[in-house]
Amino acid sequence: MQSHYKIKLSKMRYGIIGTGDIGGYYGAKLARAGQEVHFLLHSDYEYVKQHGLQVNSCNGSFHLANVNVYLHTEDMPPCDVVLVCLKSVNNGMLQTLLPPLLHAKTLVVLIQNGIGVEEDVQKMFPDIQLAAGLAIICSAKTEPGLVDHQCYGSINLANYSCRDEVLMQAMVDEFRQASIETGLVEYHEARWKKAVWNMPFNGMTVALHTQTDLLLKNKSTRQLIREQMMEVVGAAQHLGVKNLDASFVDKMIEMTDAMTPYSPSMRLDYDYHRPMEIYYLYTRPIEIAREAGCRMPKLEMLEAELQFLTENR
Amino acid sequence: MQSHYKIKLSKMRYGIIGTGDIGGYYGAKLARAGQEVHFLLHSDYEYVKQHGLQVNSCNGSFHLANVNVYLHTEDMPPCDVVLVCLKSVNNGMLQTLLPPLLHAKTLVVLIQNGIGVEEDVQKMFPDIQLAAGLAIICSAKTEPGLVDHQCYGSINLANYSCRDEVLMQAMVDEFRQASIETGLVEYHEARWKKAVWNMPFNGMTVALHTQTDLLLKNKSTRQLIREQMMEVVGAAQHLGVKNLDASFVDKMIEMTDAMTPYSPSMRLDYDYHRPMEIYYLYTRPIEIAREAGCRMPKLEMLEAELQFLTENR
Repeated sequence: MQSHYKIKLSKMRYGIIGTGDIGGYYGAKLARAGQEVHFLLHSDYEYVKQHGLQVNSCNGSFHLANVNVYLHTEDMPPCDVVLVCLKSVNNGMLQTLLPPLLHAKTLVVLIQNGIGVEEDVQKMFPDIQLAAGLAIICSAKTEPGLVDHQCYGSINLANYSCRDEVLMQAMVDEFRQASIETGLVEYHEARWKKAVWNMPFNGMTVALHTQTDLLLKNKSTRQLIREQMMEVVGAAQHLGVKNLDASFVDKMIEMTDAMTPYSPSMRLDYDYHRPMEIYYLYTRPIEIAREAGCRMPKLEMLEAELQFLTENR
Repeated sequence: MQSHYKIKLSKMRYGIIGTGDIGGYYGAKLARAGQEVHFLLHSDYEYVKQHGLQVNSCNGSFHLANVNVYLHTEDMPPCDVVLVCLKSVNNGMLQTLLPPLLHAKTLVVLIQNGIGVEEDVQKMFPDIQLAAGLAIICSAKTEPGLVDHQCYGSINLANYSCRDEVLMQAMVDEFRQASIETGLVEYHEARWKKAVWNMPFNGMTVALHTQTDLLLKNKSTRQLIREQMMEVVGAAQHLGVKNLDASFVDKMIEMTDAMTPYSPSMRLDYDYHRPMEIYYLYTRPIEIAREAGCRMPKLEMLEAELQFLTENR
């Protein structure tokens, strides 16, 4: 098996678990660039099988007529790289979804929100090679077989337990060849940096039923968002994460000021009565920080409010 | 003037500023017991002048046919005791409302929520004698001239700057003669103990648009309420308040568990689009604690959420 991906270095086989706004976008970009991509679909399987996959993109729209689509992973071939693009609330399903896609050197990339997902998937499959994917993208799956890509679109990849640097780099190269702006970043730094934006804005837009712009326009919540971001920075520094300080908070506030009014994924999940990713976005990082002796009181309160809203809508 | 209240010790003259659910109740009880009570009214002045004041009470309803009612304090006589029962958001009005009611020894009792009200009213009138009134009552003014008293009804009185112990005690005695269960308590202890319940429940029922029972039923918010109460206890202890520790928090949670589902005054203010008492219930105690070197992070967050909700409804 050692030679498996080496033979295929110039053209690896990709599996996409969860062909939604994220998996649909990156998978389609890779397929358009000539990679062999196999998509797991659910509700729009029949549609995509017949009509293909359409990506309406700010960087140029395109259509894939012939797509390898599946309803069950048992029907899919083993892949060199598997992109897991499920919501983290569904990660329990990986126990049965993943095995058919794995060979001895498969690299599984979790393109998901939150802190702790890699740790838990590694516990399920102690021997697999894992990486984190941090997508910076505004996209939505608005209709069957249609990904609507509004802006951004880059991705940062971070090695979690991939023993093979060449394989990681090969994946990065293929992403770039597919016109995906791709960074190779340090794992802990990447996950915690993402949490600096994600933890305040996802929950606060739900708790106050609002959008990013109004939270920053109000003097009190602008200060609150900054303090919540600093709680994440404080926890990350406490855990030994490098290159993360108050200047990153300034940058995140500034970036969000420049954005059009935005509803983060948790606000959309709440509005559409889907489960919210409270566990990996709040419970887990709060627990990790607390175990290391660092509290995030304002984010603890936000977590409690979200738990309440889950049970009392 | 020294002799003024002494002559009247057995029958002092009372002025009620704000004849609503609180002022209407305690004022009517005093008047029924034979005290001379003068009521300042606003919207239902004409109605009460013609039809008197009705108290529907769990402890026995009663009607006062002839009530001394006024539209302006300039028309009221100087009083020995003035009960200020306005919402604290209107305390700026005391600058003009109070002077006509004052003689050299008038005792002004602020029956209001929050921390810092006495300090600010004392700044307006450096020489007046002040006390705090902490009402433990569920009542509502539901119609013109009608106070609906549902349960409880006791009051704790606390000396803030009354130089005359005899006058304080005389007032306590007269309250008791009027069948009002009355305690004479230490000022700081009383105000901060009240804040232990008020700060979590008033704001949280607004922030999560709920009632006391559901906040305690949900495991996460039950814990949050407890932590917010402990923030108040911690601040109070830091400020030197005696007889206040975690056991009081247990008692408050237990008491609230036993209550019927309840919407605190701030929730009613929010629902009826009236200004919320954010300043004296949150901003000021948070500031006082912070200046003494003690933070209340979860209540700071709650304050920010309430400020946001004030500006974005």
